[in-house]
Amino acid sequence: MIDELIRKIDEKENPTVVGLDPRLSMVPPAMLEEAYARYGKNLKGASRALFGYNKAIIDAVYDLVPAVKPQIALYECYGLDGLAAFKDTVDYAHEKGLIVIGDVKRGDIASTAQAYAQAHLGFAEVEGQRFTPFGEDFATVNPYMGVDAIQPFLDVMKENNKGIFVLVRTSNPGSGELQDLTIKETGLTVYETVGRLTSEWGSGFMGEYGYSDVGAVVGATHPAQAEKLRDLFPSLFFLVPGYGAQEATAEDLSVCFDKNGRGAIVNSSRGILAAWKNKRYEGLFKQEDFAEAARRAVEDMKEDLNRVRG
Amino acid sequence: MIDELIRKIDEKENPTVVGLDPRLSMVPPAMLEEAYARYGKNLKGASRALFGYNKAIIDAVYDLVPAVKPQIALYECYGLDGLAAFKDTVDYAHEKGLIVIGDVKRGDIASTAQAYAQAHLGFAEVEGQRFTPFGEDFATVNPYMGVDAIQPFLDVMKENNKGIFVLVRTSNPGSGELQDLTIKETGLTVYETVGRLTSEWGSGFMGEYGYSDVGAVVGATHPAQAEKLRDLFPSLFFLVPGYGAQEATAEDLSVCFDKNGRGAIVNSSRGILAAWKNKRYEGLFKQEDFAEAARRAVEDMKEDLNRVRG
Repeated sequence: MIDELIRKIDEKENPTVVGLDPRLSMVPPAMLEEAYARYGKNLKGASRALFGYNKAIIDAVYDLVPAVKPQIALYECYGLDGLAAFKDTVDYAHEKGLIVIGDVKRGDIASTAQAYAQAHLGFAEVEGQRFTPFGEDFATVNPYMGVDAIQPFLDVMKENNKGIFVLVRTSNPGSGELQDLTIKETGLTVYETVGRLTSEWGSGFMGEYGYSDVGAVVGATHPAQAEKLRDLFPSLFFLVPGYGAQEATAEDLSVCFDKNGRGAIVNSSRGILAAWKNKRYEGLFKQEDFAEAARRAVEDMKEDLNRVRG
Repeated sequence: MIDELIRKIDEKENPTVVGLDPRLSMVPPAMLEEAYARYGKNLKGASRALFGYNKAIIDAVYDLVPAVKPQIALYECYGLDGLAAFKDTVDYAHEKGLIVIGDVKRGDIASTAQAYAQAHLGFAEVEGQRFTPFGEDFATVNPYMGVDAIQPFLDVMKENNKGIFVLVRTSNPGSGELQDLTIKETGLTVYETVGRLTSEWGSGFMGEYGYSDVGAVVGATHPAQAEKLRDLFPSLFFLVPGYGAQEATAEDLSVCFDKNGRGAIVNSSRGILAAWKNKRYEGLFKQEDFAEAARRAVEDMKEDLNRVRG
């Protein structure tokens, strides 16, 4: 699956993934009212409005980007209706030929991890028939519980040609509290330790470009650390959050790419989804032009990233 | 919320939580066939069978136990229908007066963590009206991303009188890979570091029994470590997995309780749910007697735990 992602990045000359993290406050009033009129002022109405927003964003950018990354929390918070919007978003992105990274950050062990892996990358079997619960192509995974949390994902990945991104060094301000501490036995930091484990877990999943189906989430807000990880673990493909809204610049994340300009895909969520209210485009777009604004933001981000990835 | 849990444990004289982790293989054929006949041999049929199983288990044990702990992964793997069964299980347990610990192990940051907290412990607001997405009383939370993953839960907890259990030392064999390493700067292990952080995060949430609404998941399979954590962090209430199926005995986990016999709630999932096929009860129960067998297992577990908690 990492090869497919790399091929799509090459083909579209764009290492951008659109974070589909919609919020009701982004949805134009008319669009919101229409959803409420049709489905009620409730979880369903809200969820259908969010899906409608996603659909318009996907329509506006699918020819420019290789992948989307819906953040499941923002759907889960609207309950079952929200999760139906998540699934519809995954399906619609697939219809448009996009790779879908489910940002689910699941982490549990053994048969429970297997259930999560089946939920997001595999299938459920009922009386010998297979059903697809959510059906993303990649999922993000939390490593705190160790290999028992990862192995079931590896098994399901192998069977279904899928991939995962393991949280290694996240982009949030408080992430260093645990991740930056140094392990006495090895002199490595916690995040380097997880990077090493992730690299080992992925060694049986190497693709033709020298990257593994087991990738790493590496925040763009810590360029020196990203550079170190890039050097230490050349087979780890990076999923990079933090561009735009979290104030990392393209220069900051140039270190995530290899000498061929590969090795990373960079996420932007709000910077694309709510580009219409970005200061950079002040006066250019009204709220109802959100999709057009998103396309413009993707074009600018593509140019910005291609400038630094050599 | 921790006070309510402690009061219910005291009242029922039972520090047992029933892990509602049902599997299709546990459901008696006749019950399964009925669900398939009514809803189809698909995700919905499977999910309704699982809910029916849960319902029978709850009916059989609700007067004996303070709480249940549904593991969301086992529902998520049946997609939207599975998650509907999860929600129905939460609601039904509440109807029966039980406290519900959502074993969701979510971990993300900032507004995303807030969305997870709202999903499981709070509400979604749509046009000024509040809706409950899943509505558990406690949720399990993953600390790898640091305080940014926890703070939004604390905010939602405070507003809604809820609680969390942070993964500190998990019970799985591979958990030591990261959790047992020693931090150079402090000489503490990773799990002790997380225990300390968890204790700090919970300091503003102290209840009347000396425990915080911010508790810790501490596996019963590492008694020496549990004992150390009990000593170091007296305000952490423990949610203890690993009894029964993972082969920890009541003696192993006696160290989790304080001198008043409080301080921990012990989970058993398969040991109760599938007690009918437990060797211990060989010849006593048929599969269709699964609920009766579960009640017997709860009675035995209660006695076993009360024997060691002094």
